[in-house]
Amino acid sequence: MQNFKFTVQKKSKTSLARAGFLETLHGVIETPAFVAVGTKATVKALTPEMVASLGVSVVLANTYHLYLQPGDELIKEANGLSSFMNWPGPTMTDSGGFQIFSLGAAYGEGGVSKFVGGKKEATKEKSDYEKPTVKLAKIDEEGVTFQSHLDGSFHRFTPERSIQIQHNLGADIIFAFDECTSPLASYDYQNIAMERTHRWAKRSLDEHQRLGGNQSLFGIVQGGRHRDLREKSAQVISQMDFAGFGIGGSFNKKDMGTAVSWVNQILPEAKPRHLLGIGEPEDIVAGIKNGADTFDCVTPTRMARNGTLMVRGGRLNILNAAYRQDLRPIEKSCGCYTCQNYSRAYLAHLFRAKEMLAATLASIHNLYYLVNLVKEIRRGILNDQF
Amino acid sequence: MQNFKFTVQKKSKTSLARAGFLETLHGVIETPAFVAVGTKATVKALTPEMVASLGVSVVLANTYHLYLQPGDELIKEANGLSSFMNWPGPTMTDSGGFQIFSLGAAYGEGGVSKFVGGKKEATKEKSDYEKPTVKLAKIDEEGVTFQSHLDGSFHRFTPERSIQIQHNLGADIIFAFDECTSPLASYDYQNIAMERTHRWAKRSLDEHQRLGGNQSLFGIVQGGRHRDLREKSAQVISQMDFAGFGIGGSFNKKDMGTAVSWVNQILPEAKPRHLLGIGEPEDIVAGIKNGADTFDCVTPTRMARNGTLMVRGGRLNILNAAYRQDLRPIEKSCGCYTCQNYSRAYLAHLFRAKEMLAATLASIHNLYYLVNLVKEIRRGILNDQF
Repeated sequence: MQNFKFTVQKKSKTSLARAGFLETLHGVIETPAFVAVGTKATVKALTPEMVASLGVSVVLANTYHLYLQPGDELIKEANGLSSFMNWPGPTMTDSGGFQIFSLGAAYGEGGVSKFVGGKKEATKEKSDYEKPTVKLAKIDEEGVTFQSHLDGSFHRFTPERSIQIQHNLGADIIFAFDECTSPLASYDYQNIAMERTHRWAKRSLDEHQRLGGNQSLFGIVQGGRHRDLREKSAQVISQMDFAGFGIGGSFNKKDMGTAVSWVNQILPEAKPRHLLGIGEPEDIVAGIKNGADTFDCVTPTRMARNGTLMVRGGRLNILNAAYRQDLRPIEKSCGCYTCQNYSRAYLAHLFRAKEMLAATLASIHNLYYLVNLVKEIRRGILNDQF
Repeated sequence: MQNFKFTVQKKSKTSLARAGFLETLHGVIETPAFVAVGTKATVKALTPEMVASLGVSVVLANTYHLYLQPGDELIKEANGLSSFMNWPGPTMTDSGGFQIFSLGAAYGEGGVSKFVGGKKEATKEKSDYEKPTVKLAKIDEEGVTFQSHLDGSFHRFTPERSIQIQHNLGADIIFAFDECTSPLASYDYQNIAMERTHRWAKRSLDEHQRLGGNQSLFGIVQGGRHRDLREKSAQVISQMDFAGFGIGGSFNKKDMGTAVSWVNQILPEAKPRHLLGIGEPEDIVAGIKNGADTFDCVTPTRMARNGTLMVRGGRLNILNAAYRQDLRPIEKSCGCYTCQNYSRAYLAHLFRAKEMLAATLASIHNLYYLVNLVKEIRRGILNDQF
C-alpha cells in the first residue's frame, strides 16, 4: 500500500463533482466520503467494529482534545492514534486551531472568554460564532496562547507545535495550523488572518518536512465569505507542496456551495479536498457538487445522542409521544443495524430510560444514513447520474 | 426444541455442585451459568451481539421496571421481551417483588419513603436494607401497593398481577411473586412473610396455569438467615408444581453458602435452582458448591460503569493514576474483546473523558470475567476437578 495516492476516477460533466480513491498506509478511502469524527479517539458510543461495519472508511480525531487528554506523547508511545483507539483504517487529525478558538479559553484583550466550558465539542453552529472569541484570543505572529477548557491551564500552539503534536498522534492525514475567524469579523480582519494563515501554512509544511515520516499534510484555505480572499487563499495554498487541501472557515448555508466552488476552481484537480466540519445532508450534497471530496462533522452522532434521527426528507425526533407505541423501524427502507433489528418504540423506551444503548443505536443509524448518502452520490457520479 | 427441560449431567462427589443443561424454546443454557441482567430490556452499554459473543446464554430483565416503562402491554405487542430487545436467546424475568420493596416508594404507616429515587437499580447492598423500606410498604394478604420511583404514581401488584405482567413480557423463565424482607427483620416477621410468600407462590402458580402458554414458572424459597425457616420454605415450595426454584432473600457473605446448602439439600435434584441477585465471584463459587445452577446480578456491569474491573485475585480501579500511562491490557491472560484490543491507558482515558465506550469496554470485560469463571467451574465439575 502506498503512503498516499489520490486518483480521480471520474469527473461530472455538469458540476465540479468527482469520484476517486485515496490510498493510505491504513487502507483506501473511496471519495466522495464522509469522515466519522472520533473527537477523543473514539467515535462516541460506538466500537470501531460498528463504525467499520456501517461503512465508514476513515476517522478524524481532534488534536486539541487529545493533546490535553490523554496527551500526544502517550499516543505516540501506543504506536499512534490508529493503534491506541483500535481503528485499523485510515485516520485524520485536525490542527487544533478550530477548537482553540471555539472551545479553549483564549485570553488577552478583554480577559478570559465566557465561552469556556460552554460547549463540549466543536461545531460550526451559528451560536459558536456569535460570541467574539477571536477578539479574546491571544494571537500573535508566532502562534496562539489559550487556556484548557478542562482545567484552565495555559497552553501555547504554534504551527510547529501543532505539527509536532500531530506527528506524535500519527494520523495518515494531518492539517496545517490555521486561524479560524468569526464570520462576523470585518473584511480587513479576515484578510489579516488569512495572510497569517498562509505564513503558518508555510511554517507547518517546513516543520512537517523537517520531521519526516509517512504522514500526509493538507494545507487549509481560508478567506471567509469574500470571493477575492477565498481565491487568493486557494492560489497561495495550492502553490505549496501539500498532499491535499482543507477548506476551512465558516459558511452560511446559502453561500457555502459558492465559496467552495470559488476555491475548487483554483485548487489542483489531482489533489484531494477536505471540507472541514460540514455534515448536514444538504451541505454535503452542495460540497460534492462544488468539488469537495471528503467531509467530517459531529452532526450525525451529536444529533443521534439527542434523539434526532436522519430520515429521507427530514428528521424524526424519537422522543415524540407518537413513537412510544410505534413498532416500525426508524425507516423501513434503511439497511442499518438499528433499522434491521429494533423498533421506534424500543428506541423511544431506551431514550426515556436514559440507557446508553439509545445513543449507540441512534448513532449507528445517523452515521449509516450519511455515509450511505455519500456512497450513493459516488455511484451517481460514476454512472453520470449525479 | 423443548419448552423446558433440565438435565443434570454430572454431580460433584465432594459438594452439592452439579453441571447440567437447561433447554428452553430460545436455546440451551449450560449450567452452572451466570445470567446477565438487562434491567430495562437492555444489558447496559452493550448490544445483544456483544452479550452473546462474550459467552452469555441467558438474560434476566426486571418486571418492575418494564411494567412502569415502556409497559408490559407494549412488549406483548412486540412479540415479547426477546423480540423487543433483539436478544434471540433465553430470557428470564423476576417477579417485581424485590424492586417494589427496594426501589418503589412504598407507603402506609410512616408516609412516603425517603428511599424514592435514591437508587436507580436494585441491589443487595447493605445500604438498601438499612432503610426500613419494608415497614413503609403497604403489604396486605392480597398484595402490595407502591409508588413508582419514576413519577410517584400509585400501583398495586398481587401474585396474579405479577404473573399476568410476566406473561405479557413473555420470558422463558418467570418467577412467583414473593415478599422480600429486610435482614434486620425479626424472626417472627420473617416467619410471617415467608408463610405469606408460600400462599402467594400457590396463587402465582394457579394464575400461571390458568393463563397457559409456554413459559416456565419458578417458585421462590425465602426464610432469611434462619435454618428452620429456610428448610420449611424449601419443603413447602418444592411440593408445588414449579419448573424450577429461585432462592431469594438477603444473605451475609459468611452465611450465604450455608443458607443455600440448607435449601438445596431439600429441593428436588431434578429441577434447576436460581440464586437471585448474587454476582460477586466468591459468592458464585459458594453458590455453585452448595448446589445452585444459575445466578443473576448487576454487580459486574455496575462495577464496570464505575471503572472497577474484575481481575484474578481482586479488582483493578482503572481511575488510579498509575494506569494513565499503562499500555498493557487489563489482564494479559484474559481473552475478552477489551483485553485483546485495548490498553489500560486507553480505558483510563475514556473514563476520564466520560466517553460511553468506557462503560461498554469495561462491561464486556467484567461480564466475560464472570461468565467464564462460571464456565471454568462447569468444566471442573464435569472433570471432577471442582
